[in-house]
Parts: sequence; C-alpha cells; structure tokens
Amino acid sequence: MDSKTLIRFIFFTFFIALLLLLTLTNIPYPLSLSNGGALLECATNSRRCTIKQPPKPTTRRHTGDVPHHPLDPLTLTELNKVRSILLSHALFQNSNTYALHSIVLDEPEKAVVQEWSQGDALPPRKATVIARVNGETHVLTVDISTGVTTPVEVGKHSGYPTMTIEDMTSSTWAPLGNAEFNRTIMARGIDLNDLACLPISLGWFGKKEENRRLIKVQCYSMDGTANFYMRPIEGLTVVLDMDTKQVVEITDKGRNIPIPKADGTDYRFSAQNTKINNMVNPISIEQPKGPSFVIENGHIVKWANWEFHLKPDPRAGVVISRARVKDPNSGEIRNVMYKGFTSELFVPYMDPTDAWYFKTYMDAGEYGFGLQAMPLDPLNDCPRNAYYMDGVFAAGDGTPYVRENMVCVYESYAGDIGWRHSESPITGMEIREVRPKVTLVVRMAASVANYDYIVDWEFQMDGLIRVKVGLSGILMVKGTSYNNMNQVNQPENLYGTLLSENVVGVIHDHFITFYLDMDVDGPDNSFVKVNLKRETPSPGESPRLSYLKTVRNVAKTEKDAQVKLKLYDPSEYHIVNPSKKTRVGNPVGYKLVPGGTAASLLDIDDPPQKRGAFTNNQIWVTPYNKSEEWAGGLFTYQSHGDDTLAVWSERDRAIENKDIVMWYTLGFHHVPCQEDYPIMPTVSSSFDLKPVNFYESNPILNIPPHFEKDLPVCNAAVAA
Amino acid sequence: MDSKTLIRFIFFTFFIALLLLLTLTNIPYPLSLSNGGALLECATNSRRCTIKQPPKPTTRRHTGDVPHHPLDPLTLTELNKVRSILLSHALFQNSNTYALHSIVLDEPEKAVVQEWSQGDALPPRKATVIARVNGETHVLTVDISTGVTTPVEVGKHSGYPTMTIEDMTSSTWAPLGNAEFNRTIMARGIDLNDLACLPISLGWFGKKEENRRLIKVQCYSMDGTANFYMRPIEGLTVVLDMDTKQVVEITDKGRNIPIPKADGTDYRFSAQNTKINNMVNPISIEQPKGPSFVIENGHIVKWANWEFHLKPDPRAGVVISRARVKDPNSGEIRNVMYKGFTSELFVPYMDPTDAWYFKTYMDAGEYGFGLQAMPLDPLNDCPRNAYYMDGVFAAGDGTPYVRENMVCVYESYAGDIGWRHSESPITGMEIREVRPKVTLVVRMAASVANYDYIVDWEFQMDGLIRVKVGLSGILMVKGTSYNNMNQVNQPENLYGTLLSENVVGVIHDHFITFYLDMDVDGPDNSFVKVNLKRETPSPGESPRLSYLKTVRNVAKTEKDAQVKLKLYDPSEYHIVNPSKKTRVGNPVGYKLVPGGTAASLLDIDDPPQKRGAFTNNQIWVTPYNKSEEWAGGLFTYQSHGDDTLAVWSERDRAIENKDIVMWYTLGFHHVPCQEDYPIMPTVSSSFDLKPVNFYESNPILNIPPHFEKDLPVCNAAVAA
Repeated sequence: MDSKTLIRFIFFTFFIALLLLLTLTNIPYPLSLSNGGALLECATNSRRCTIKQPPKPTTRRHTGDVPHHPLDPLTLTELNKVRSILLSHALFQNSNTYALHSIVLDEPEKAVVQEWSQGDALPPRKATVIARVNGETHVLTVDISTGVTTPVEVGKHSGYPTMTIEDMTSSTWAPLGNAEFNRTIMARGIDLNDLACLPISLGWFGKKEENRRLIKVQCYSMDGTANFYMRPIEGLTVVLDMDTKQVVEITDKGRNIPIPKADGTDYRFSAQNTKINNMVNPISIEQPKGPSFVIENGHIVKWANWEFHLKPDPRAGVVISRARVKDPNSGEIRNVMYKGFTSELFVPYMDPTDAWYFKTYMDAGEYGFGLQAMPLDPLNDCPRNAYYMDGVFAAGDGTPYVRENMVCVYESYAGDIGWRHSESPITGMEIREVRPKVTLVVRMAASVANYDYIVDWEFQMDGLIRVKVGLSGILMVKGTSYNNMNQVNQPENLYGTLLSENVVGVIHDHFITFYLDMDVDGPDNSFVKVNLKRETPSPGESPRLSYLKTVRNVAKTEKDAQVKLKLYDPSEYHIVNPSKKTRVGNPVGYKLVPGGTAASLLDIDDPPQKRGAFTNNQIWVTPYNKSEEWAGGLFTYQSHGDDTLAVWSERDRAIENKDIVMWYTLGFHHVPCQEDYPIMPTVSSSFDLKPVNFYESNPILNIPPHFEKDLPVCNAAVAA
Repeated sequence: MDSKTLIRFIFFTFFIALLLLLTLTNIPYPLSLSNGGALLECATNSRRCTIKQPPKPTTRRHTGDVPHHPLDPLTLTELNKVRSILLSHALFQNSNTYALHSIVLDEPEKAVVQEWSQGDALPPRKATVIARVNGETHVLTVDISTGVTTPVEVGKHSGYPTMTIEDMTSSTWAPLGNAEFNRTIMARGIDLNDLACLPISLGWFGKKEENRRLIKVQCYSMDGTANFYMRPIEGLTVVLDMDTKQVVEITDKGRNIPIPKADGTDYRFSAQNTKINNMVNPISIEQPKGPSFVIENGHIVKWANWEFHLKPDPRAGVVISRARVKDPNSGEIRNVMYKGFTSELFVPYMDPTDAWYFKTYMDAGEYGFGLQAMPLDPLNDCPRNAYYMDGVFAAGDGTPYVRENMVCVYESYAGDIGWRHSESPITGMEIREVRPKVTLVVRMAASVANYDYIVDWEFQMDGLIRVKVGLSGILMVKGTSYNNMNQVNQPENLYGTLLSENVVGVIHDHFITFYLDMDVDGPDNSFVKVNLKRETPSPGESPRLSYLKTVRNVAKTEKDAQVKLKLYDPSEYHIVNPSKKTRVGNPVGYKLVPGGTAASLLDIDDPPQKRGAFTNNQIWVTPYNKSEEWAGGLFTYQSHGDDTLAVWSERDRAIENKDIVMWYTLGFHHVPCQEDYPIMPTVSSSFDLKPVNFYESNPILNIPPHFEKDLPVCNAAVAA
C-alpha cells in the first residue's frame, strides 16, 4: 500500500466510523424523525456519491389526493395521519427504536366492496401496519378516522417483514465501518471509493439464520463502468446484523480471482460514443384521437368492454381488482376476477459454494416488488399515449413519498389479428373478413438490484387476460480465474456459462407466482380439471383405434387442485360458476391457459425449496382467506417455510362451489449465454385467463375492421 | 314435395347431369386446354353461383418477371415454358388425360446456392413437376432452357400428390349428378340451390382407401347465412372417385338431426347491420419515414441486421431461405438457417363415428397450404406500411395464375421492450436505460376451407426468430338433436361442446410441423441437448441439499435426437457449430425454445397417427437430404405412413457435425367453447430460434432509445 493510499484509507475509515457512530445510535428510527435523513445522505468526498442519487422525496400532485373507492390505496394525507396516530401510540411512545415495514390499506371485506357503488359513502378507511418495535414484529390495524389502533393476530410464524429501503441502503454502507473489510478490499487493489455493495437476503438454512435479522453483503468494483454488476469481488461475503449493522462474519474465499474487466460492460446510451447503431426508421403506435381508455378518480380504468381497479402496491407491485367485462348480449357488467397480483417470486441460484448457495431470492416478500419498481421511461418503457400512475408509499419512518410513473397504461396494436376468415379457393366465395387486435396493457418494471422484471396485464376485447412477465436487466455473475473454456476441465462444475474473461453467468431459475382471486359471475366458483383422455373404440365400432375425450373432474378439496402439468396427460383448467349456465346449458367459466412453464427441480426438503414450496406445483386452488395473500408467507425474510401456500393447501379445505383463489406460477430456467452480457435482451413468457363458455358466442363478432379513412395522417417529426 | 319444387328438381338434375357429362369426358385435363375452363364456371341459374366467385385468373404485374436469384420461384414466363415443354413431351402427347399437381422450382444444390453471389450467372433453371398421367404419378425434372425432361426416382411409396384446386372444386359439384344424393338433400328440406359442399380428404384406414383416389364430400345449407359451416347436413357422406367423379357410396345416418339455425351465424361486416360495436379510437403503427426494410429483386428481404430470401410456395405457403444476420462486432453476415417452412399439418378430429372418424387432415400435403393462402386484407391482416408479395402458381392444366397479396412483410412495434435496466432504490444510482423492441414480420394466412391458419416469421434485432401460428376462422361442427346440455346424459360422449342449439364443436388437435434447416455459421452443425439435472452436494459440502447443473449430450444419431419434452426433465436444445467457438471458447449456436406444446395422444398404431407419425416426438433432427422435406411424405394423400419423418428417423443415421435439419411441431388441443361460435377469436402459439453464444455479447447493446423528436406528428384522418 503506498502512502497516498494509506492516508486515503485512514481518512475514509475514520469518516465511515464517524458516520456509523452517528447512525447506529439512531437507527432504525428515532422518534425525532428529523435526524434520520442523514442515513440517506452521501459523503461528499466519495466518487461513488457523486454518482449516487438517493430517491428524491417528492409529493408532486398528491397532496390533495382523496380516496374515491373502497380499494383506493392510502393517500399521502392518510399516510401522514397513520404516522401521527402511531407516533402518539403507547407502543411507539415507549420504544427507543422502531421501523415501519409496511403501511397499506386494510381492504374492506369483499362483500362490502361488492355492494359499494359510486356515490355511496366509503367504508371506514383503515391501514394495516407492519412494524418492528424493540426487536419485535407487530401487525396493527389503524382506523384512520377514529385513530383507534388494534393489534392483528397473525399466528406464530418464522420470518421477518419485508426489508425497508433504509434496511437495504444502510446495509450496503455498513461494512465500510469495519477495518478488516476495508483492508480486504484494498488488498484486492480496489479503491474504497469505487466500491458498490449489494444487500443479499440470506434465506434460512438452520440455526445460523435464526433469532436475529441478518443480511449478507457482497461488493463490486465500479471503476470504469456504471455496470458494476459485471465486476464482482468474488468470494467476499460479509454477514451483517441488520438491526445493529454490526459485522457478524467476513468470509473471503476469492483472493485469487481477478476482478473482471470494465471494458465493454457499460450499457448506457451516453457510454456508447459513436457506436450507436440505429437500424430502423422511427416507428410508433399512433392514436390521433387519443387513447380509448379513461381512468376515473385516479384508479378505475375503463377501456372497451373492460373495467377494473388499478393500484400500485409496495409488496405486489401492481394490484388489479374487480376486473369486470361487459357482455355484448345483455349489456351487463360481469365479474371475472376480484383481485390479481404478483404474490411472490422465487429465484434460486444453482451454485452450492460458500458465496452463492444462499442466493435464493424471494423478491416480493424480501425486497418489496413494488418498492423496487422504478419510474418508467416514457416512449421506451411504454409507447406514446401511455398514461402513467404514481405510487404513494411510506418510508421506514412512516413518511410518505411518491414513486413517480411507476405504472403505465396504454393501448397496443402490433398488427395482430383478432379473428379472420377468408373463403378458400375450394368454395370460391368472395369473403375476406378480418378484425385487427387492439389490447390494453398495464405495465410495471421492478429492478430488484441487477434484474429487471417487466410485468404486463394485457386485456383483450374477447375477454382474455394475458399476464406476461419479461426478464431483462443484468445477470448476477460470478468471478472466475478462467479466461477461456479450453482451461476448464469439467464444464459442468462451472455452475454456469463463461460469458467473458473471468465472468461466469450462474444458472438460476425464476418463478413468479400469481394470486388470482377469480369471481366468475359471483364469488362462488368451482375448479374443474377437464382432462383429455385417450379412448379406444370397441372392436368394429370405428376404423379408428383411438380418439380423445374430455372428462370433467370437479376439485372437491385443495389437494384435488394441486396440479403438476403433464404434456402426455393434459387438462384444461376451468374456474366455473356452477350456479350459472349458458343458454345451451354449459357452466360459465374462465380457463387458465398455462405458459412459460418451468418446474422447480430442487429437492423438496432443501431449505430454499421449503421456503419456496409454493412452486411445488404449477397450479393450486385455495378457499378465499383474507390472510392468505402471500405465497411465501406474510413474513418471508429468513422464514423457514412454515407459512407458505403449500402449508395452507395441505389443510385440504373444501373448495367446491366456494369463493376460491387460483395460484399460478410462471417459471423460467435461465442458463445464461453470452448474449446476456453485459445486459440481457428481454425474455418473456405469459399465461392467459380465457373465457370458456362465459359468453354465449364470440364477443367480438361485432367489432369493425380498420378503414383507411379512420387511420391517422402522419408526418415525420420536424426535428428529424 | 310440391309440384314447383319437383319441377325445379327435375330441371336442376338435368342441368347437372348435362354439366357432368360434359366435364367427365374432359377431366382431369384434355390436351386441348381451351375447354377445361368450363369446370370452374358456375351455373347461371343457381343462387349459390351468384355468391360463388371462382378465383379470377390474373397475371397482374408478373408478365415481365425474370428470376434474379437461384432460389427465386418459377416466373410466369417460366411456368408457361414448362407447360409447353410438357405438352410436347411423349408422356403427355400419348395420354388421354393428365393433371399437373405441382410445378415448382427444382432448387439447385445447396453448395451451388451458397457459392452464388449477386451478379453471377444463375445456375440452370429447372422445374420439378408432379403429374398424374393415365392414373399414374410421375415426378419429372424439366430443364427450362434446354427443354430436357428427366424422370425423378422417388421410391415406391403409397399415397397420391396434393390435390389440385380443380380436384377440390369439381368434387364439391359432382354429387349433384347423383339422383339419390339429390333426393336425400331434398328429403331434409334443403333447396339444392342452397347447398354448399366440401371435399374432405379421407385418410387411409385399410383396403377401402387403396388403389384409387377417393374423396368424401359433406354438405351444408347456406340458406340464410354466408357461414354455411354452422349448418351441417349431419351424417351425410358421399364417397367419390376423384378421377372419374363417380359416386362410390352415399351414407346417410343423420336424417333425424335438424340443420342448425342460420340466425346469428353470419360474421360479415355487411351482415351486422346496426350492431357494429366500435370500442376503440383509431390506432395504427406509423412510420412517417416509411418502413426500414427493402425487398431487392422481388425476394431478398433486408431489414436491420437481417437478410433472407422469401418466396411463396404452393405446398408450404411461405419459404424462408438463407436467413443470415450481421454480426455487430465483425460486420460479417453470418448464416443462421438455410431453409425454414411449414412442412406439414396434422389435424385429427376426436369423433370415431361414421361421418367423422376419417377427419384427420394433413393440410399441406393434401390441400396445399400455399394454394389455400388467400389474398391478405390490407390494414386488417397486416398494418399500414406492409409490403405485399404475390404468389405465382400453376393450375392443374399448367396455366400460371397469380395469387395476389399472398404474403405480407411489415415492421411491428407493440410497445414492448428490447432490453432495460433501472438502478433500484438500493443503489440509488440514477440510471434508466430502455430500448424499445421493433421487429419484422412475414405473414401469410391459409384458409383450408373453414379454418384459418396465420403463420408469422418474426425477426428480432437480437438475433431471435419467432415462428408463430395463429388459429382463427370457423370450426368444423357437428349437427346434433340436442338443444341444451340438460338433455345430455353422458356429456363425454358428445365428442365436443354444445356451442349453440343443435351444434357441437368437435374436439380436435392441430399440429404444425416445421422444417428448419439450420446452418449456424456453415452447414456442419451438431444437435446438443443441454440437460438440466438435479445434483446433490456431498454431505458437509454445502448447506444446500440440491442445485441444478447442465449436462451436454451431443446427439450422435437420429434416435438420440427424437425428443419428447418433459417438464420435470428439461433440456435446452442447441444447434451448434462444433468447429467455431466464441472468444472465450463456447461453441456458437442457436437454441430451439419450444412453445405451444401439445403432444399427440393417439395410439401410435392408429392409422391417422401412423400417417401423422411426425408428431410422435416434438423435436427430431435428420441429416440433410434433398428429398426429405415433407414430414408426412411426398405423397400424403391417402398415404399409409410409409414415407414420414418418423420412418426416415428410424434409419438412425449419423447427425453429429453434419449438415442437419431440425423439425419442430407446434401443437394445440382444441376443446371448442361457445366463444368460438360462429367464428373463432385467434388463438396463437409460437416457438423461438434464439442465439446462444452465437454472438460475443448482447448484439443490440448499441441500438438507441426512442426520442420524442424522432416520432411522427399525426393528425386524425380528414374523413373521420
């Protein structure tokens, strides 16, 4: 270490120690909130801090918000009220420290919401609060108008609440207060100013991960690139106590592994210099008369035959409620889905070694899928004419803040066909009838550190809802001493693909589990497996030896509805309303059309799979239960898997002709390839909720074709 | 029968008999071609004929066409030359009757095509002709410049060539010459003028379907609707000899089954009267500077980094050849796929009864997937700015005709994302980089009588090729005496779904098998199954009990490459070039990403499944063999399944590091639902060919985002 570096090191260490001293005495949150902000401030002499821009608190446009609908999220004013109520509550008054991990609307009972109509008084507005006070987790209901606070009994389960943003941010700084850590970093030849660290949830593997909130921190060099993810300081793992920010353990098993090069890793437009390759002329979805949807009172989306409630949520990201569709025959608005959202993600990495085995993320329950959803980029994340909706969330101290442009809503037309028929040359009739397909998309994109998840809810006029998840962003990579595969004797033991010199993309899975509270024409529905079965005609009955017939199996209890998909024993999966039939007597229903199916292949007893046991099947159906919304359990962080969907389903409750919830998991196996370096082209997959004998006939029979006279007249942009 | 009807019957029968007498002496084709046209003419006193409009022969724009590329299809002039050469050939001179079932380019050897470059002289232009002469099938090569005709040895296989359009059309008329048939029709209360009949390939089930070309004809009432498909005359089947047009057998087992009502079945815009429901404002994909692709010399499509040869084909529909992509690093144009097309379709219906068991269509080999591809409807089948390509085909007498606007090419932008990354609140860095996804689509839509198949080849800038098949059009339905499901004791024995009063949508499958001659960086490739396998760490090695690793299995022979997909034993399927590696030593490759997978569940020994045995696996790989292009055999019609892909693959030839062809089957199980009545909203599915270590890194790193200044300025249309 040369003397200049030494001086810098001493100065930097001193500064960090001072900063930590200041903050450790104050975190999680002092009752006097004015000091807490320091944690988010950057040191002024660090290059890292000139790049870092902590989220700017903003209240743009939301100070005057009032709720209009029983399901509207808490407004800025309401969040402030909740905070005041809590601050004057004995639990918080008598505590030294607390953190508010979640403040969201306590949704009224379903029946209340269903009976409510526009113009009625709102049911009492309540908040559900998840707080950590003096090391204990509390769940409270706060009645906003009366100020009454009631504890909620949630049962004894392992696990901690979703981290606060402040938990995550402060964890990335904390190791710098540890001299051994700093020495290790500098021993690798990395300037402390170039350090970028990530807070990595460590799952649960036994005693070591019990009885205190822990986190693992791993770091990267951001020297020469904004894409520090491609420059891992491999093998270095710091275990932190998340509450005290104390370093519990430092493991350093990667000293011989070089930091991969920065060259070619920066993906930003500004870093491409003259290399920009514009392969196509400008192209745009244009609607000269504007979009066809309206958003009433901030949250009710009305488009074509659809109507639904849309809101951002800190844990789920986006919540679609009361999706209803107009019947073209009766004109009636019919219920399809009471509530749908991303309940949990499970992302296990496939490397059993020390610095990797624990990477088995549950992005919603651990990090907050909505908390990580960043502002969308107009014209690129969503096309022109998109409408953007802000999220209003509470920080760890209860202060509300606005996540701008978190969700977008737009109409899409890709040139696809809604239905068509031409008469063929066989009949020679001159018929050519085609209807274009126009859809409505609701989108959010969550950046859980390196990875970006794009979640689309796409509504079609024919009644179909397509739920699509796109994966992009940046791989979580591993440093290696290899430069070329010809140096590798056992490629299987790389745990992934060599993507560039010294960079391995580690194999992993993504599972995204959706909560789908279907209410097809009312709450009481049944789950029917329509099995396609090979039948053999009796001898002489037919020249055929085989054909397929459908056998309907109505699921009586939860275990009947635990479904592993089978290519050679296929079924359709219907949610029907047994009390309502079509004119010709078919039960009205919607079917789940699976897609993007990759199953979890981990050992069912492996601790990560126990925690992610909601991926043991692709489909589950449970009776509606207000407290069963999060497939990995309410408290996912460091949970043992004792409160998952799999545990609930084993109760084997009755589900026939009941208010039921369907769960579906989209899965991806991801074996990285060089094309994913340094940033991944989007890979996406989807599943559908599709009407099946819900309508009497094709509901888009009467839509018109496109006519030239209706299409816009467009000119090239002036500046172009 | 009242007297008026009787008179009409007598008159009509007489007229038809006269017409048939005239034509039967002349078909298939007299050497004097001028008389043949009569077959396509309609009787002037029939209401059916006022609706029917036989395809108008046209030569618009194509009289001056000349070939520019070795793979260009035969031009109008060349087709005429081939016809002249054949007419003066002894085989045809000495025959009474003949029919030309196919005249297409005999593609030069691959090596010749690969060595050819723009400006070189074209290799000799040759045609492959499939003819039926005096009841025998002949395959001939015709050298267009020398006039030399050579017989081609294709081996002894069962089956007949693809029907000609004239085969199909004349078959629909022929039963009207049979008095028993006409009596049967009238006994059902149907005016002969309201009759619409379909020629239905009857497959092969044994002796009855051997040694002569047969077809089954079933009919519908078009009284009150253009959608006659919804009004079946159930249970009535006429077996015809296709060569003599003689009625071989009439079965009538549906006398007690009413003809379903016409009301509500007409889907045409003009038939909707005031019921049109315009749910959205005008929307369009706009490109004020025009599209970014060019089509050189009629067939070479150049767009973004892609370049390929595109041509219509009477059997395959659309053929993509020499798909090549530019490498952004080297600037080199690299080979991806030598040839890709829809090789065969297999559509078995799941009803073993007399009028249905034989419906096991093979739409390409029996009907000609390209012959059935009708003109696309601008603005509806393809968006504005689409380019339309005509097909130039030969009729059964060798006369060329033009199928206008058969294929379209357009750029699509649906609002989707090519890649993205935002920095999350964890790091707080202010990064938001998003690139929109713009693609190029090649589309055709074949109307095989009732059904419409939309086939898209979609090219992405990231090197991915997505092949998508959409199903729309009209169901093949069955008449029934039931009006309501409450009359049905055993719903499983309906063989389908009651869609409306007296209408059952019969369960069926669709399999679409693609020929994919991959040439990744050159002809010699290997097929590698990258198996994802659960691994158990040794005790004490890791807190994990399991993880996944990849095991690469290189297929040595064809049987190694017969793949049935398994959710719980998954693999990636790579086509790699073993002689070419990336900088860090990975073999360059493309992977097949399956989708839309439904397996055929029929008994492997069931005659239809023997004929459709190419669906016994989802993936196959064979060594390149010019004669193995049609998965169901060259002669599919009435074939016994002795010349299918399954038979070829059983030879178990070596496929490692060879010029290989991959075959993939997209599958759909279709259990109809009321929404499919009277016309089906499109259902689609796709598979991808995706670069995997083909590029050194993300090939679209350098594309720019959208900027407001580049987007068009659009106004509402004046007339709107």
